[in-house]
Parts: sequence; structure tokens; C-alpha cells
Amino acid sequence: MSGKVYLIGAGPGAPDLLTLRAARLLAEADVVLYDALVHPETLALASRAEKVAVGKRCGRHSTAQRFISKRLVDAARRHRIVVRLKGGDPTLFGRAHEEISFLQKNKVPVEIVPGVTAAFAAAADLGVSLTQRGKARSVAFVTPRVGEGEAPSGWARAVASADTAVLYMGAGDAARVRDALIEAGVAPDMPVALVENASLEDSRSAVGTLAQLEALSATRGEGPAVILLGRVLTKAALSQGEVADLVRVVAAVKR
Amino acid sequence: MSGKVYLIGAGPGAPDLLTLRAARLLAEADVVLYDALVHPETLALASRAEKVAVGKRCGRHSTAQRFISKRLVDAARRHRIVVRLKGGDPTLFGRAHEEISFLQKNKVPVEIVPGVTAAFAAAADLGVSLTQRGKARSVAFVTPRVGEGEAPSGWARAVASADTAVLYMGAGDAARVRDALIEAGVAPDMPVALVENASLEDSRSAVGTLAQLEALSATRGEGPAVILLGRVLTKAALSQGEVADLVRVVAAVKR
Repeated sequence: MSGKVYLIGAGPGAPDLLTLRAARLLAEADVVLYDALVHPETLALASRAEKVAVGKRCGRHSTAQRFISKRLVDAARRHRIVVRLKGGDPTLFGRAHEEISFLQKNKVPVEIVPGVTAAFAAAADLGVSLTQRGKARSVAFVTPRVGEGEAPSGWARAVASADTAVLYMGAGDAARVRDALIEAGVAPDMPVALVENASLEDSRSAVGTLAQLEALSATRGEGPAVILLGRVLTKAALSQGEVADLVRVVAAVKR
Repeated sequence: MSGKVYLIGAGPGAPDLLTLRAARLLAEADVVLYDALVHPETLALASRAEKVAVGKRCGRHSTAQRFISKRLVDAARRHRIVVRLKGGDPTLFGRAHEEISFLQKNKVPVEIVPGVTAAFAAAADLGVSLTQRGKARSVAFVTPRVGEGEAPSGWARAVASADTAVLYMGAGDAARVRDALIEAGVAPDMPVALVENASLEDSRSAVGTLAQLEALSATRGEGPAVILLGRVLTKAALSQGEVADLVRVVAAVKR
């Protein structure tokens, strides 16, 4: 006999960008294992649950990953509703594969509850559409992060082949990202936006060109950030407030 | 003076995959202009609003699009909270650009409320992760649909360059999609899943290879469908229930 594990997407950050289903399951949960970026108000919805921080960021710590999978199996043997709460959507850069495989091997039922990913929140904050009829028909979601022992993958090619791209976990590595993208054929004047803390009150964005990526990235703080890239990010497409911000940021960068 | 327009993502279909923010705004809305695929229970949350169906599907009817934009401006001049409710996320194949541009031109404030896109719901239904450490580091969201007067875009190249891909609005055009992808260099034995009505009770999926796409597509009904493509879709990665279904579907296709 075993409980069930729900891999739940907590959304991009703002607690009210959680889904109704996730909110209901959190309220019913016996145990919640949660990531570092989950908002305290989201966690507070799990009023009767034991809450366990398994706070890793940026996909590091593969030992920690195995430890988390084991804790999920263990929790499912003692409880009915076990929630694994992840930032964004569990199936996009959420290490869901490792957890699902381990749970299935141990005959623990698992269900995924999808969530809003940071890319959509960043686009919403900027006031732009990732796609645009006749102009942007493809969007690539990639990470330039390559794990230990992994071959460098074709992430830069995936970006270069799409009309719009969103890079996860790349803002801390701006110079390498810029060089790899230019090498892959992306124009140095391609519009770029760096959005930090998307959907949160302290969300901030800096917009410029790919050539300026390192300088734009230097303006960011400690929050999680995504990089958007593509011709959809023209000044005209950005809402007025954002354009004012970006002009300030770009001016600061140039000084 | 003008009200505000909220471009809200209603999520992939299931009413409880709406965000808390969207639910609150619907409850407060004065007018709701909604798409064909929005669930009746979601719409019912807008208890005090005038509800206007502007039901287009698959991005057709550009005249209708202009008509919708005009209605939004008109509604914002008469009401405080105007909701434009779209399936999935508004910034991904949601025609948000046209509406935002028109609203900004008419000095109507607009805010985007992100939602869960069908790709994530489809992955959740299949029980697979779209990304996989060391194996799938990029995901392309594309549409093979090309509008009237538009040049055929590089959608097939974007798919071929990514580790995983999700095709929107392509299931009705399976033979052309298959041919274009094989021409772009995707292997005919690449695993493919077609998920119809993702997240809904009558969600169904058929899994096979790219070469089988036309036959898989022939098994679908009238609901909206996405096509997933990539090495992450191995039998081992799919949950047991889904594998049983796919074996049945593939057997039926072969007969």
C-alpha cells in the first residue's frame, strides 16, 4: 500500500499564479517537499502538512536529487498525499524525470500537476507576446547549463533556429552565452531582455541587444532570471513603462 | 478615462488548472470576451460579467481578430474590468500581439495574466518530462500553421534543432508535418505522441513514431490536439497506463 506523489508546479513566483488544483492539493497534503524558490504564501496553503525544504537551485547537486527521490518514496509509504512542489512547471527544467523514474521503480503512483513557467511570466511582465503572426512562429526554451560529465549540447543551435527563445539558468553565465549564440549565428544586434523575479513585486527587466548581454546581466540582483531573445522584443512591442526602464538601464550600462 | 483590459490565460482546458489570479479577476470582471476552447465552468466564475463569445480556433479569421480588438477598446471605454480570456497562455500562439498593439494605440491599459499551456498539460497526461538532464536541454514550441500571404517559416528547422518539440495546431495536417520534419532532418523513427484534450477527462493520447504520424492523427476526435516529439518519449518514460493505451492505439493503426 502506498500514498500518491503529486509533482506540482508552483508557478513563476507570485503566489496567485498557482493553479486552483495545486492550491487544493496543498491544502489536503500530508507532506510537502519544496524547492528554494517557492513563495512562503504558497507554502502556507499546506496548512496541515509537514513541510520539508529540499532547496536546491539551478539543477545542481545530483546527490541531493537522489536523496529527494528516496524521501518521496519514504513519504508515500507513510502518508496518503505527498506533494513535491517545484518552481514553474515540473516538466520544464524541473528534474521531473529522475523523480518519476524512481517513484515508478518503487511502485509509487505519481501524478503531474502542470504550472505556469517563468517564460510566460517574463513575457507578461514585459507586455510582449512570445509569438507573433507572420513573424515569430517558434519559441525555444533552453538552458545553457551543462552538467558535470555531460557533452555540451546543441542549446545554442536550438536558440538560433527558433524565432524567439527563452534561456533558463543562463543569466549568471552571460559572456559564455553571448559568445556561444553569436558563434551559432545569432545576430549581435538581436534584441534581448533579461527579466529577474518575473511575476513578483520586485520584478525588473533590462532590455538591450545580445552584444550587451554581459552588461545587462551585471545589473541584476540575486533573484532567478530568464533571458528572452528575439525580434518580438522591439521597443514598439514593449509596453511604455518597460521601455522607460530599459532606456534607464541601457543608459546606466553605457556610462 | 478608460477601464483596463486583462489578457488572461485560461489554461489547457481543465477548469482547475486556472490560476488563482485569473479566478479572482473573472469574479470581478464587468465583461469577458472568451475563446471557443474555454471551459464552461471557467466562464461561470465570471458571475457578474457580460459574456461575449468571440470563438475562433486555430488563429484563423484575421477580420475577426480586428473586430475583437475593437470590441476590447469599446468595452474598456464603458467598463472598469475587461477580461479577454484565451486558452493556454496568452503569449504563446494567442494573438496577444495584435490585441496589445491595438489597445496601446488606443491608450487602453493592458495587463497579461499568464496561464498553463497545453504542452505542459500534455506532458503531465503522458507522465513525461519535456526536459531530461543530459538528454534533453531544449524544447521548441512551434506551429506548422502558416497564415495567408505568409512565407513558410522555419518551423521545421526549429523542431529539428531542439531536443524536444511540441507542435500546436498541427494535428489536422499530419502528412505535411511529417514530410516537412523528415525533410528538415528529423529521424522517421523519432518518438511522437499526439495528445488530444490534454488535461480534460476525455484526454487521450496515441504514441508512435514520426513515420506513423498520419495514422496516429487519424485516430483523434474533434478536440484540440498537440503533437509531442522527442527522445524523452520512450516507453520507459511513459507511465504504465499510457503505455497500455498506446499499444492498443498502435495495434489499431497497424490493422
